[in-house]
Amino acid sequence: MASIPSSMRAVQLRAYDGKPESVAVVHMPVPRPGAGEVLVHIAATPLNPSDEAFTRGLYGFKKPLPAIPGFEGSGTVIEAGGGMMAAFLKGKRVACHAADPKIAGGTWAEYLVTPASAAVPLRKEVDMEQGATMLVNPMTAWALVEAARQGKHPAIVQTAAAGALGRMVLRLARRFSIPVINVVRRAEQVELLRGLSAEHILNSSDQDFDIKLRELCRQLKASIGFDAVAGETTLRVLRAQPKGSRMLVYGALTLTPCQVDPGSLIFEGKRLEGFWLSGWLRGKSLLTKFRISQQVQKLLSNELKTEFQARFPLEEAARALQQYAANMTAGKILLVP
Amino acid sequence: MASIPSSMRAVQLRAYDGKPESVAVVHMPVPRPGAGEVLVHIAATPLNPSDEAFTRGLYGFKKPLPAIPGFEGSGTVIEAGGGMMAAFLKGKRVACHAADPKIAGGTWAEYLVTPASAAVPLRKEVDMEQGATMLVNPMTAWALVEAARQGKHPAIVQTAAAGALGRMVLRLARRFSIPVINVVRRAEQVELLRGLSAEHILNSSDQDFDIKLRELCRQLKASIGFDAVAGETTLRVLRAQPKGSRMLVYGALTLTPCQVDPGSLIFEGKRLEGFWLSGWLRGKSLLTKFRISQQVQKLLSNELKTEFQARFPLEEAARALQQYAANMTAGKILLVP
Repeated sequence: MASIPSSMRAVQLRAYDGKPESVAVVHMPVPRPGAGEVLVHIAATPLNPSDEAFTRGLYGFKKPLPAIPGFEGSGTVIEAGGGMMAAFLKGKRVACHAADPKIAGGTWAEYLVTPASAAVPLRKEVDMEQGATMLVNPMTAWALVEAARQGKHPAIVQTAAAGALGRMVLRLARRFSIPVINVVRRAEQVELLRGLSAEHILNSSDQDFDIKLRELCRQLKASIGFDAVAGETTLRVLRAQPKGSRMLVYGALTLTPCQVDPGSLIFEGKRLEGFWLSGWLRGKSLLTKFRISQQVQKLLSNELKTEFQARFPLEEAARALQQYAANMTAGKILLVP
Repeated sequence: MASIPSSMRAVQLRAYDGKPESVAVVHMPVPRPGAGEVLVHIAATPLNPSDEAFTRGLYGFKKPLPAIPGFEGSGTVIEAGGGMMAAFLKGKRVACHAADPKIAGGTWAEYLVTPASAAVPLRKEVDMEQGATMLVNPMTAWALVEAARQGKHPAIVQTAAAGALGRMVLRLARRFSIPVINVVRRAEQVELLRGLSAEHILNSSDQDFDIKLRELCRQLKASIGFDAVAGETTLRVLRAQPKGSRMLVYGALTLTPCQVDPGSLIFEGKRLEGFWLSGWLRGKSLLTKFRISQQVQKLLSNELKTEFQARFPLEEAARALQQYAANMTAGKILLVP
C-alpha cells in the first residue's frame, strides 16, 4: 500500500461564475478519513454536465467556497477511518462520488475523503477510466431504463438523445427490447445516432417535428419520457405523448423553465416529475445499491460504455471545462491526477 | 308527471370563437332517451369557467357544431329509456351533467338526454339552484381536499383562491382543520377572502410575494398545491413549496403554459399533475360516486354553498357569458330555462 503524503494537488473553485480564472490548481493538506469514511487515491475523474453546472452555481446545491469540484471518480482506498464498510473497502479499487453537499471535498484532486457508502468496489475487468465515469451516467441510464421497465412502458421518448447519457439509454433499452424515440436539436446529431443504428430519430428544428413526434409517440405508445433540455422542448414532447404519460426531467440544458401545456395535465392525465440520481440512490438499501452497481459494471464494456474525447492533467481543468462546454457530444473529458 | 312536448328551446353554439353572435337560442325537437339513458327536464343550469372555455374552443374536447353548451344542471327525470338505473331515476329530482364528448346534448336547454350514470338523485333539502351547481365545483372541491387528506398533507396552497371553487376549498379544508394558503392576484380579492376569515392570503402582485409564500409554505408544510392560473404562477408556487410536494393543475385562467423550475423537479422531488373531475369520477365505482354525492349534498348549504350573482333566461345566454367572463369572482350566473 502506498504511503500517504502530507500534501496534494487539487482543483480549486473560487467563484460560481463559470470564468476560467475562477478555477486553479492549489497545493493543500491531504484530508484524513473520520469514522465511516475512506481516503481514496484518485486515478481518474470525468467532467460531467452536472460538474459544469456546479462550477457555474447552477446545480442543486453549492459547497462553501473555495471548493473542490468533481462529483465522481475512480481510485484506490488507501486508508479507512473505522467502521465495517470502510475496513472492507481498504486496499480495493473503487468508483466513488462526492455529489453531496455533506461531502466537503471533490474528486478533481489527488485524494478524496468520502463516506464508505459513497464508494463502490470495482470488478476486476473494469478499468479505472470506465470506473471513473460509472456512478453518474451509467447508473442514471440504468435507473431511467429501469423506470421504463418497472412501469411496463411500451416505449421511451428522450431528448438530448445524442449525449453520452442518451446513447447509453438507447443501447440499454435495446437490450431490453424497448423502442426509443430519440429527439435531437441538430442535423449532425441525427447522423451520429444513425451511426449507432438508432431507428427513430427526430430533429426538433424540423418543420414537421411536432406532427411526426406525435404520430410516433402514439404509435409506439411512448408513455415515459426523459428530458434533459427543458424549455419548450418539455411541452412539445409531453404534448406528443399518449394519455397518462410520465415525463422525467433530469437536466435543463437550455437553462430555462420547463413549459407544460395545462391540457396535457388536466385532460390527458400526464405527469411531470424529476429524476436525481442522488435522491434515487438514497431510497435504496446498501444491498440493492451493491446489486445495481454489479449489474451496471457488467455492462460497462458494452451498453454502458463511456467514450472519451480527451484526457487532461488537473492543471488544465479550466481548459478542459471550456473544451467540454463547447462540445459535450464529442465524448467525455477525463482529468487524470 | 308532465307530458313531453315535441319541441324545446336550447342554446346553440355555432362557432368556437367566443363571439356573442355565435351563441343563439333555437327551437329543436326534444331528444328521446335510448337504453340506459334518461330525459331530464332542466330546472337550472350554471355558467362555469369550463363552459366559458368550451364556447371558446379551449376546453379538453369539442362537440360537433352546432352544439348545445352547458356541462351541468338540475332538473326532473321525466322519461327513462330502459335499464335499472334509468328506471330508478324516473320521477326524481337530479343533478346531471353533459361534460363528456359522448353526450351529444348540453344542459343549456329545456331538456337533456344523458346516461343514467351522469345523473345523481338530489336529497330533498337540496333545492334546484344548489343542485344545478353541485357536480362541478362542490365535487371538485371535495375531490381536491380529499387528495390533501388521503396524502396526509399538513397544509394546502391554492391559486385563484377567491374564485367560487377556491372559496369552497377554503371552507371545506377548514372543516377538516387543514390550513390553506390562499394566493390571489388582486387587492380586492384579498379583501374578499378576509371577509371569509381566511387566515393566510398572499397577493402575487406584491413585491415580497415570493419570499412570504416560501416562508409560509415551508412553515405550514403546504406539500400539496392546487393551481387554476398556470403560466409563471405555477412556477412560483411550486418553487415555494417544500421538498417532495405535489401540484395539481385543474385550470389555466391565464391561458398560457405552466412554467416549472427544473430544479424543483430534479433536486427537490416535486411533481406536477393535473386534475379533471370527469377523469377522477371515471375511476370510481357507482357506489362510491353515490356515497360521495351524498356527502357533498349534505355540505351544499354550508361549506360547499354556491353564491349566485344573477339569473338569466336561456335567451340571454350570450349576455350572461359576457357578464360572467368580466367578473367570475362575483358569483355564479344561472340560466333558468
